[in-house]
Amino acid sequence: MQYRIEKDTMGEVKVPSDKLWGAQTERSRNNFKIGAPASMPLEVVYGFAYLKKSAAYTNCELGVLPIEKRDLIAQVCDEILEGKHDDQFPLVIWQTGSGTQSNMNLNEVIANRAHQLAGNTIGEGEKTLQPNDDVNKSQSSNDTFPTGMHIAAYKKIVEVTIPGVLQLRNTLDNKSKEFKDVVKIGRTHFMDATPLTIGQELSGYVSQLDHGIKALENTLPHMAELALGGTAVGTGLNTPKGYAKRVSEFIAQFTSLPFITAENKFEALAAHDAFVETHGALKQLAVSLNKIGNDIRMLASGPRSGIGELIIPANEPGSSIMPGKVNPTQCEALTMVCAQVLGNDVAINVGGMQGHFELNVFKPVMAANLLQSAQLIGDACVSFDEHCAKGIEPNQKRITELLNNSLMLVTALNTKIGYYKAAEIANTAHKNGTTLKHEAVALGYVTEEEFDQWVKPEDMVGALK
Amino acid sequence: MQYRIEKDTMGEVKVPSDKLWGAQTERSRNNFKIGAPASMPLEVVYGFAYLKKSAAYTNCELGVLPIEKRDLIAQVCDEILEGKHDDQFPLVIWQTGSGTQSNMNLNEVIANRAHQLAGNTIGEGEKTLQPNDDVNKSQSSNDTFPTGMHIAAYKKIVEVTIPGVLQLRNTLDNKSKEFKDVVKIGRTHFMDATPLTIGQELSGYVSQLDHGIKALENTLPHMAELALGGTAVGTGLNTPKGYAKRVSEFIAQFTSLPFITAENKFEALAAHDAFVETHGALKQLAVSLNKIGNDIRMLASGPRSGIGELIIPANEPGSSIMPGKVNPTQCEALTMVCAQVLGNDVAINVGGMQGHFELNVFKPVMAANLLQSAQLIGDACVSFDEHCAKGIEPNQKRITELLNNSLMLVTALNTKIGYYKAAEIANTAHKNGTTLKHEAVALGYVTEEEFDQWVKPEDMVGALK
Amino acid sequence: MQYRIEKDTMGEVKVPSDKLWGAQTERSRNNFKIGAPASMPLEVVYGFAYLKKSAAYTNCELGVLPIEKRDLIAQVCDEILEGKHDDQFPLVIWQTGSGTQSNMNLNEVIANRAHQLAGNTIGEGEKTLQPNDDVNKSQSSNDTFPTGMHIAAYKKIVEVTIPGVLQLRNTLDNKSKEFKDVVKIGRTHFMDATPLTIGQELSGYVSQLDHGIKALENTLPHMAELALGGTAVGTGLNTPKGYAKRVSEFIAQFTSLPFITAENKFEALAAHDAFVETHGALKQLAVSLNKIGNDIRMLASGPRSGIGELIIPANEPGSSIMPGKVNPTQCEALTMVCAQVLGNDVAINVGGMQGHFELNVFKPVMAANLLQSAQLIGDACVSFDEHCAKGIEPNQKRITELLNNSLMLVTALNTKIGYYKAAEIANTAHKNGTTLKHEAVALGYVTEEEFDQWVKPEDMVGALK
Amino acid sequence: MQYRIEKDTMGEVKVPSDKLWGAQTERSRNNFKIGAPASMPLEVVYGFAYLKKSAAYTNCELGVLPIEKRDLIAQVCDEILEGKHDDQFPLVIWQTGSGTQSNMNLNEVIANRAHQLAGNTIGEGEKTLQPNDDVNKSQSSNDTFPTGMHIAAYKKIVEVTIPGVLQLRNTLDNKSKEFKDVVKIGRTHFMDATPLTIGQELSGYVSQLDHGIKALENTLPHMAELALGGTAVGTGLNTPKGYAKRVSEFIAQFTSLPFITAENKFEALAAHDAFVETHGALKQLAVSLNKIGNDIRMLASGPRSGIGELIIPANEPGSSIMPGKVNPTQCEALTMVCAQVLGNDVAINVGGMQGHFELNVFKPVMAANLLQSAQLIGDACVSFDEHCAKGIEPNQKRITELLNNSLMLVTALNTKIGYYKAAEIANTAHKNGTTLKHEAVALGYVTEEEFDQWVKPEDMVGALK
Repeated sequence: MQYRIEKDTMGEVKVPSDKLWGAQTERSRNNFKIGAPASMPLEVVYGFAYLKKSAAYTNCELGVLPIEKRDLIAQVCDEILEGKHDDQFPLVIWQTGSGTQSNMNLNEVIANRAHQLAGNTIGEGEKTLQPNDDVNKSQSSNDTFPTGMHIAAYKKIVEVTIPGVLQLRNTLDNKSKEFKDVVKIGRTHFMDATPLTIGQELSGYVSQLDHGIKALENTLPHMAELALGGTAVGTGLNTPKGYAKRVSEFIAQFTSLPFITAENKFEALAAHDAFVETHGALKQLAVSLNKIGNDIRMLASGPRSGIGELIIPANEPGSSIMPGKVNPTQCEALTMVCAQVLGNDVAINVGGMQGHFELNVFKPVMAANLLQSAQLIGDACVSFDEHCAKGIEPNQKRITELLNNSLMLVTALNTKIGYYKAAEIANTAHKNGTTLKHEAVALGYVTEEEFDQWVKPEDMVGALK
Repeated sequence: MQYRIEKDTMGEVKVPSDKLWGAQTERSRNNFKIGAPASMPLEVVYGFAYLKKSAAYTNCELGVLPIEKRDLIAQVCDEILEGKHDDQFPLVIWQTGSGTQSNMNLNEVIANRAHQLAGNTIGEGEKTLQPNDDVNKSQSSNDTFPTGMHIAAYKKIVEVTIPGVLQLRNTLDNKSKEFKDVVKIGRTHFMDATPLTIGQELSGYVSQLDHGIKALENTLPHMAELALGGTAVGTGLNTPKGYAKRVSEFIAQFTSLPFITAENKFEALAAHDAFVETHGALKQLAVSLNKIGNDIRMLASGPRSGIGELIIPANEPGSSIMPGKVNPTQCEALTMVCAQVLGNDVAINVGGMQGHFELNVFKPVMAANLLQSAQLIGDACVSFDEHCAKGIEPNQKRITELLNNSLMLVTALNTKIGYYKAAEIANTAHKNGTTLKHEAVALGYVTEEEFDQWVKPEDMVGALK
Repeated sequence: MQYRIEKDTMGEVKVPSDKLWGAQTERSRNNFKIGAPASMPLEVVYGFAYLKKSAAYTNCELGVLPIEKRDLIAQVCDEILEGKHDDQFPLVIWQTGSGTQSNMNLNEVIANRAHQLAGNTIGEGEKTLQPNDDVNKSQSSNDTFPTGMHIAAYKKIVEVTIPGVLQLRNTLDNKSKEFKDVVKIGRTHFMDATPLTIGQELSGYVSQLDHGIKALENTLPHMAELALGGTAVGTGLNTPKGYAKRVSEFIAQFTSLPFITAENKFEALAAHDAFVETHGALKQLAVSLNKIGNDIRMLASGPRSGIGELIIPANEPGSSIMPGKVNPTQCEALTMVCAQVLGNDVAINVGGMQGHFELNVFKPVMAANLLQSAQLIGDACVSFDEHCAKGIEPNQKRITELLNNSLMLVTALNTKIGYYKAAEIANTAHKNGTTLKHEAVALGYVTEEEFDQWVKPEDMVGALK
Repeated sequence: MQYRIEKDTMGEVKVPSDKLWGAQTERSRNNFKIGAPASMPLEVVYGFAYLKKSAAYTNCELGVLPIEKRDLIAQVCDEILEGKHDDQFPLVIWQTGSGTQSNMNLNEVIANRAHQLAGNTIGEGEKTLQPNDDVNKSQSSNDTFPTGMHIAAYKKIVEVTIPGVLQLRNTLDNKSKEFKDVVKIGRTHFMDATPLTIGQELSGYVSQLDHGIKALENTLPHMAELALGGTAVGTGLNTPKGYAKRVSEFIAQFTSLPFITAENKFEALAAHDAFVETHGALKQLAVSLNKIGNDIRMLASGPRSGIGELIIPANEPGSSIMPGKVNPTQCEALTMVCAQVLGNDVAINVGGMQGHFELNVFKPVMAANLLQSAQLIGDACVSFDEHCAKGIEPNQKRITELLNNSLMLVTALNTKIGYYKAAEIANTAHKNGTTLKHEAVALGYVTEEEFDQWVKPEDMVGALK
């Protein structure tokens, strides 16, 4: 392989000739061989591209960066955002906890690429832009990395997570309305209970997701607060006057998202409670989705020896040994995602609680876990929606059979003959394997006519209406 | 021990004569000998007392309960809320997951105590009130237990947690203002960094707690939604028309808290995402408080071989073997509480994710964990405030010594001579054990006068102002 | 209330006259009003009693404590272990993280009670024993508290947890043998699968618990290592020669458990990985038990609209509104315990990871969580065993009905006609609502005789025998 | 793109012409667009390759597969193990929870590649091997996937994790011996305490890792148990006699690892407690490593305003804004890995606890998390070792300065003058900012000569020797 020499304050480093990165990126590559290469999420890289461009615009506007440098920086950032340099970011999550090396990766790539754009050859001549003095001007890793994290997370939440959850929510809401009159047996404690409609059952899922989306949205104002302008420890050392506010406005403009400068920069560097907060809402969604996925898997169980009240799409052969088997595979993918998100939450908590003094150095692991959860929840909801929820149909024959057979219809008699006599009827029918009606009449508590008039499943589901 | 006979639908049970509870409570006591007795939080019992009284008022108003019965029920509930019957609730968390047995515990105690209040002897004559038909009228365990949980949790959050956190927040805010001009060295990566003031450092903690309180408050509307009126599966079977809304109004009136009836009762029984949501905010506070407690412990470390920039109160001898030792014990209690809250969060998630169909049967464990976290955070903040935060003082001598000695003041030269020359100065001073000024001049990058003019710690902390 | 004056190195403190504790205990009571009083587990107190007695014996044997003092100390320790002074330990978990104050609580109670035993009145005359110099001789909180924790945990594991799990394991094993010939349908993905026997199904649970007990036992050697003898930082300062080994022998003798002195005392004070390790096995058991409890709840679901293959005991009325309802309440208590244990595991991890230098100061929270988990698992297994597992019976009628109806019996034809034709048979029968046999013959792939000969459920369960 | 038609029991599917996979793989690709493509760990694929080859050998030996088919299967498996087909496994973790589709991915790739090896063109002519009937013979996803998981995990643990941890352990052990005589101040509660040597301090870390490795090794026997032979539900349906034992012997032979057939196949399919168990040990290591990494970061803090007792290698510039800054970046990478592992543990627990009946369908998420943790711990230990631990040096000047200044040396006087007088000396010196010796003599408790004779740090570290 061909190499060129790059330098930093510690000396010279050999870098592959075809790469845009410089000395510090290469040091990090060599010093942190932990897990798969390039594990630092590209979303964070893109977050950096927005902020480097915005910083250049702000620096220029505030008179500390020439317009030519601003434009070169902006041009490279745009290329990065177009995905043209995805292979120039080889670093891993498991580097310095401030993400300094990824900040330098950006600074170096931008500087070298700008050198090219300015008509030069990398490694030859004086650099058109200095990575630290120009590209990183008015910045520190300590405020850029959290800014990049926030941009990446916010975008992912609003572009992937919320639309994905909403898509599933809307399908469930449509199904809820479609099946609003399908009366079925309810189940509490996994045991037969009084009836409700499929529409009602699904409306509970919709309400869970509505609350979950609301909880997630409640966290966005904290996530919208950007650290940029705090520089090294939050004081904003080496930034021109007005920088913090202005740079957040450029970021808001370039991303079309409502970012603002964090009111308190010391928190913004030293703690990542905004990530804890937002991921808290993601894990709430995971808790909800696990319940929903699990319920649907159980309601669709069978086809002959389970509950079998719902029919879900058969998307693929389910077994490599059992012919004709079809499984609730979307429920399985969804609930596995939920397990992952619950784990990620702990990783984020553990990182978040261990900030020290002016800096939390668990930034990359917190960023990576939140981005994964946000992506997985969004994707899994879409997958579950398209390959399962949209196709849910009631198995009317089975539903009717189970409903009419249920002993819990006796509850309708409570207000007529009291809880204790009603219990006697149910217990007797259970013991004898007979019907409620038979025993109710045999025990002399009601007449046949009364039973038929009082015990109507369709009347038992409507009290709330 | 003396016993009397109580009955339920399964038959007769012997109950200690001096106890107000009945057959089902006694069955539960015998069937669930798991952990310490009476572990079901009393706060849940009180939550039940509010709702039983409210249900009685609503039932009466809607014409399904005589006023005499209403008043008897209300009178016993008031006694319970005054703490007069605390020893009548012997059940454990680890019972049925619907909390049915605690609901029956309340029903039975209220019925038997009402029998006494009506001038009768328990166990003699027909019961003045029937536990199921009167006390539990228009109710099911499935809607009462979650209602009791929500009342208990909401009260605890607003009466203990938020005031406790606010008290600490206000002290830190006062200290932040008091020490706003005390310039000290900053630390990032646990390494010397550019300076900031103690006021700035503490303001970061205040901002964390402000965001935490806001996050907690964001969850309260979900917690304010009450299940009552859903009865067995959420349909509201066996409730009179208008019951759900009216009963929530009575609860709001009796508790003076803004409770409302849950828009969707199916969610309210089958999922406890409100608990997941609120506890998510509690664990965010735990993450914040762990950082704060940890920082203060480290800043106060020493007295001679640590950082020693802060002086905290010496509340008790610190060691049984090392004479004269004083320890940051309040920091330790606080961070242990944080560890517990992070654990409780997982317990709540695991419970929350496993609801089945129309009922989540992890109610008691979710309630107990949230109530513990809410209490511990509130109490620990007050304890930390009164015995530590209020007494924090800067160790000015130490602060000045460390500040003046720091190599990171060189950062002020970045904008004058560039990052690379500044690095050379710092590296040389570090290597030679000399001062920045000495090496800056020796290297010929600045004059003495320039150094003195440009490198002023007090000028390095104010860029954000 | 009457008070007397007690002193420590910080000065005088008023202590309730009727209490045996001294100044430092009282300071802690006042300084740590966090959560319920006296939350420090009594098991830890008893662990201390064993070690204080053992230390006195060792000190005496090694010539640094007179025999009269040894005997006084031992006498009080014996009284403590008999439960005579349970109300003398009012401190909370949320105190100093070294547990120093609980160590002093023991030292003070032992000294004062010894003063009484020597015929004196507390608070009058010179103390017969000095809390620090006599009772705490050759000890530090830093080695006593972990020793007390280890004694408490080891005892709880071998006296409560393992016997409880074993009791349930043996019942399941007996049931497995009893129902070894009951062929039933298997379920994978919650969908119908090829058959197995109830005996086989239960044997999986037995194997899980066998592996869990083995995993738990694997952790005991680490737990058997005692810190005592390390004193303040692990060096054993102020201990007589031979002390560490000898004191562990006394502890082993007094507890009849195989305790040994930790080979490395620095780890023993600074880290509690033994607790992390042992609790790791407890949470493994929780994972297993959750699966078992969940399965049994689902297999017993119904009675008419669920799976209903198992009948479990009806221990109490299940519903306050639905007459005649019986619920799998023991499964619910068990799985709630599992949720708690999974949470406790995180609390312990978070505490364990945050030791600093020579001391981990999350000792009380780690001890309390492990002791709770160990107790709950043991108790819940016994409760589940006695009130559920022992009474499990197959519902033969239901089992046969579901078995014969299953489409997955077609798998037996794979080796005869190939997977693809077998799948065609199953799919056709599913589509037409017919039997496998009907379609198998109709499609011409087998004759009736072949089908009857090849597709025998009882032949499909035995390949492993 | 060019396509060919592949078929399964559900019909035809278009597959890219240049790919070896078939219909079911393609269905899964299309149905599960969740997260990054090809996230299923290659280690699992390789585990499958071992088992498919072993199954072919066993089937052949037991007379149910011709030798030509055996050899074709084995040849493709060897190619897969050589990494020649890494791009043929495009599926994600978030598929069916049984991993059926990855099993089919292997079956299909092996069948198609064998078709090529047999001189044919994929998609033309009858398949040389049938994916289900030949490659999957005597297998089910339900026993192959867990077998592949176990092989992958066991290999990773013994090839990456244990060697990595051992490498770090050995360096720390060497450093412990190298610095066995460097006496330094101890710290408990982050406060000055009695002295110990660096050797002793490091020996605690070594002991932690020794216990951690032992704990991990204790879990390997469970991990060595293979499900293969259980087929669909654990009964071993459709396997020839002797298959389970023989196939595990082939796997042991081909992997050179001590795999055995699981005694109980029902557990082996329905639960993955072995993963919970092994990951429990991994998270114990994470807890240990977090403590170690944290300690070293704090001991190396400074260079001028921290503790500064250790010097660690300066591997890269630490700051993009603060010139000359060097940070404990390896500690940060290591502790971030620990945070991830603690999170992964919860993901695995949540997956493990939710098995249903005869199958746990959280297999892929459990496998992926354990493999990640095992890799990260191993890699991070090596990285930390090579770039940090190996270069640790004591800062002797700083160590001596802090040691001699310490007030806790007074503890040496306890056995001479009692705890209370010693405390008075320390408190007075602290208050007056003087030395212990000065106050000890001034208070008249010891002479100068006694003080010098009794208070020798080097004598205070050796009691345990």
